[in-house]
Amino acid sequence: MTTTSKHESTSVEIDSVVEQSRTAAHAWACSGPETRAALLRGLASAIEHAQPELVALADEETFLGAARLNGEVARTAFQLRAFADQVESKVPYQVIDDPAVAGAPPVGHPSMVRVRVPLGPVAMFAASNFPFAFSVLGGDTASALAAGCPVVVKAHPGHPRLSRRVHEISQGVLVELGLPLGILGMVEGGSVDVGLALIRHPSIAAAAFTGSKRGGIALQAEANARPRPIPFYGELGSINPIVVLPEGIAGKEIEMATMLAQSITNGTGQFCTSPGVLIVMPSVSTGTFLDELVGALKAQKTHVMLTPGMRKAFDNGVQGICARAGLTTLLRDDVNAESAPRPYLGRVSAKTFIQDWQLHEEIFGPAALVVDVNNAEEVTHVLEAIGGSLTVTVWGASNGTSEDVAIVRSATQIAGRVLFSGVPTGVAVTAAQHHGGPFPASTQPSTTSVGYAALERFLRPVALQDAPAWLLSQEGRPI
Amino acid sequence: MTTTSKHESTSVEIDSVVEQSRTAAHAWACSGPETRAALLRGLASAIEHAQPELVALADEETFLGAARLNGEVARTAFQLRAFADQVESKVPYQVIDDPAVAGAPPVGHPSMVRVRVPLGPVAMFAASNFPFAFSVLGGDTASALAAGCPVVVKAHPGHPRLSRRVHEISQGVLVELGLPLGILGMVEGGSVDVGLALIRHPSIAAAAFTGSKRGGIALQAEANARPRPIPFYGELGSINPIVVLPEGIAGKEIEMATMLAQSITNGTGQFCTSPGVLIVMPSVSTGTFLDELVGALKAQKTHVMLTPGMRKAFDNGVQGICARAGLTTLLRDDVNAESAPRPYLGRVSAKTFIQDWQLHEEIFGPAALVVDVNNAEEVTHVLEAIGGSLTVTVWGASNGTSEDVAIVRSATQIAGRVLFSGVPTGVAVTAAQHHGGPFPASTQPSTTSVGYAALERFLRPVALQDAPAWLLSQEGRPI
Repeated sequence: MTTTSKHESTSVEIDSVVEQSRTAAHAWACSGPETRAALLRGLASAIEHAQPELVALADEETFLGAARLNGEVARTAFQLRAFADQVESKVPYQVIDDPAVAGAPPVGHPSMVRVRVPLGPVAMFAASNFPFAFSVLGGDTASALAAGCPVVVKAHPGHPRLSRRVHEISQGVLVELGLPLGILGMVEGGSVDVGLALIRHPSIAAAAFTGSKRGGIALQAEANARPRPIPFYGELGSINPIVVLPEGIAGKEIEMATMLAQSITNGTGQFCTSPGVLIVMPSVSTGTFLDELVGALKAQKTHVMLTPGMRKAFDNGVQGICARAGLTTLLRDDVNAESAPRPYLGRVSAKTFIQDWQLHEEIFGPAALVVDVNNAEEVTHVLEAIGGSLTVTVWGASNGTSEDVAIVRSATQIAGRVLFSGVPTGVAVTAAQHHGGPFPASTQPSTTSVGYAALERFLRPVALQDAPAWLLSQEGRPI
Repeated sequence: MTTTSKHESTSVEIDSVVEQSRTAAHAWACSGPETRAALLRGLASAIEHAQPELVALADEETFLGAARLNGEVARTAFQLRAFADQVESKVPYQVIDDPAVAGAPPVGHPSMVRVRVPLGPVAMFAASNFPFAFSVLGGDTASALAAGCPVVVKAHPGHPRLSRRVHEISQGVLVELGLPLGILGMVEGGSVDVGLALIRHPSIAAAAFTGSKRGGIALQAEANARPRPIPFYGELGSINPIVVLPEGIAGKEIEMATMLAQSITNGTGQFCTSPGVLIVMPSVSTGTFLDELVGALKAQKTHVMLTPGMRKAFDNGVQGICARAGLTTLLRDDVNAESAPRPYLGRVSAKTFIQDWQLHEEIFGPAALVVDVNNAEEVTHVLEAIGGSLTVTVWGASNGTSEDVAIVRSATQIAGRVLFSGVPTGVAVTAAQHHGGPFPASTQPSTTSVGYAALERFLRPVALQDAPAWLLSQEGRPI
């Protein structure tokens, strides 16, 4: 395996990596908070130590730019340390203790102690658009390791050299700490075969995925078609509507338009929380706001997309949208003329949007659609038509009028996160974060892939009935 | 609709019931702890009030006997009240509050408050074998109502008159409390069409199912094939191995054999936790224990099974098992000679069991298989071959020897509940209970269908970012 070319892991290699993971699973499941925290903190320090080298490599492969990539390394290290804090707080070792109650059932019952066991080796499908935070040492890996599960990364073919280098650094940390290398394995490949071999592997106990709707649906079907189905945690895409109410922009049309244009074009729109639909209620500000938005979008710099395939998909998506009946194009810079795609902004009526499901599909890249609505009821219908989203942002619902209530209610029905100011890009790593939402945002909408609750995905409760003393002395740690 | 014959809900009826549920969903989602607790307690009192009538009706339709059915009513009422306690403790309204932190990300972040919203109308597929506790007002209904979701029950065709009567009583409680009738709807039918119409209905937001592996897999596929997939919580069956170590029966062979025979034949073996595999380590007690077990099984009374179809499946299952190579029959009373099926006990070597997957399938009814093992390692291999079970029971692991550790570890890998004394039939309703486990025990092994955590299944987190004051004053209640 060279460090410059792409590589397809063979089935023998995949077997070997998963076998190492399986072998390491027991020791890692039994590891205490000190050991897990030491690894998570060691990994955080190691990527910070190699930060200049890693950012340069990432920029060569992803074109995302040093500023953004340095920020992403900081977030990734922060996240690893946040999960170290969680294990030190003994979150994965929490126990529910129901001492025996004398007497006949249903009141009487034996001693019941609920512990949680790590699921086992987790297949982690890295994303292209976050080469650090959703890749080899990203949130899925950090949360699975914190839960006590070894991880087999399926590296994203968009940044193979960076993935290898981060993996190599991680192996160094494992060696230094005297931990089995199988705690963090990696396979590579651009073909679907590698992913299929991984998710079908009998020793894989769960899968985490961040990527396209099509890819996620296919992998979920594979997870369920196994002789022993396994949990599949997929984050599949999102259109992230922003509801623009009059109060939300009145007197600050330029400021809001500029902030929005930056969010739409941030990372050339390659964020799962990139705003794709702007649901605009008419007011005296509308004209100015949209003019300013078009102007601000034009003024934004964009960079080359992550892969040529993504660029092609973006161009096709914009072309497809332009062909829909009832759509007006507000901004379409010469899409195919430059190596970096230029922003697109279209405009449709609520009625057209609701009826045309093709307008509800995410276009990955710097594109958005203005949907004109006449009242709060139409806002709720547009949100219902969208159906599932990582985020909904509502600007201008600060008074709690009956219309505000109806819109916010509708937003909570379809989203995992509802914002009342700012833009959806930028996802805080906190205890209260929920990065999920109804399908297609997530295949398991009650779970999150960002924030501290992410580690809950990789633990399974086991109730111990009348457990002997030797077992209970483990204090929530598997034996 | 008469009260005596079976009925198939038409698609117009199903639409109407789900529409009522959808209409009631918002008010119920917004209901406070007092209202939810009043309904749950009202339902508990109402079935207790009608207990003699309901038990008589249930016995006519299920043949389970008055003693068992009275116990089941008590459990069902207890469970409804336990969930009332949970809502009064404000469990469904729990909030995680992350106040804003000043500064740049990743340390700085906006105000984040995590609330949980009820999923919406839940399709609840009732089981045949618990006409109260897993039916119209059973654990799935109680936990969904507690979470703030209306429920549409798909009544089990095995007890249609009881289902109707319990539903009628429930509607009376709703009327008395001035609550919308749509909070608890019901459809009926023995054909698959009714279940399919329900799970495909666009207004259904989640499904809970207790039943066969085949039926559950088919319904889960439907839930995932919807234009908008929904969570499917299925409890599909279990073989519930008991590991019999020498210490577990030494000096108490008769007592343990009798208890086991009662568990195997309890309710004519129609429990999801009925022990189907006995993994026996050889000792001086083995001969006596197995002789006593055969004798005790012979002495047990059995009653007619829940439906003729189940009886046929049991007879076919026993016949199928008897045809497997390497199997010795220890007890086979004239299976087809009586209206009530008689217990079956077979015996195989660990090697035969491990290699023959047909021996790993659950036979619903009073049948069990003795698997002879030679050492702890073979126990773990047998458990691995079983792969997923609601329970594993281990008798005689009280000292924590390295062999005990290996066996118990293996048990926690495949089960949702591990018992160290007694028998798996009888499932306590407590906070620490976990009635789930790796597939096929559950389609979502991290969730439970019995115990207080069952209500977690029907709530979905939403993170509110920079939420206005009017929204936060709701204290975890949807608006």
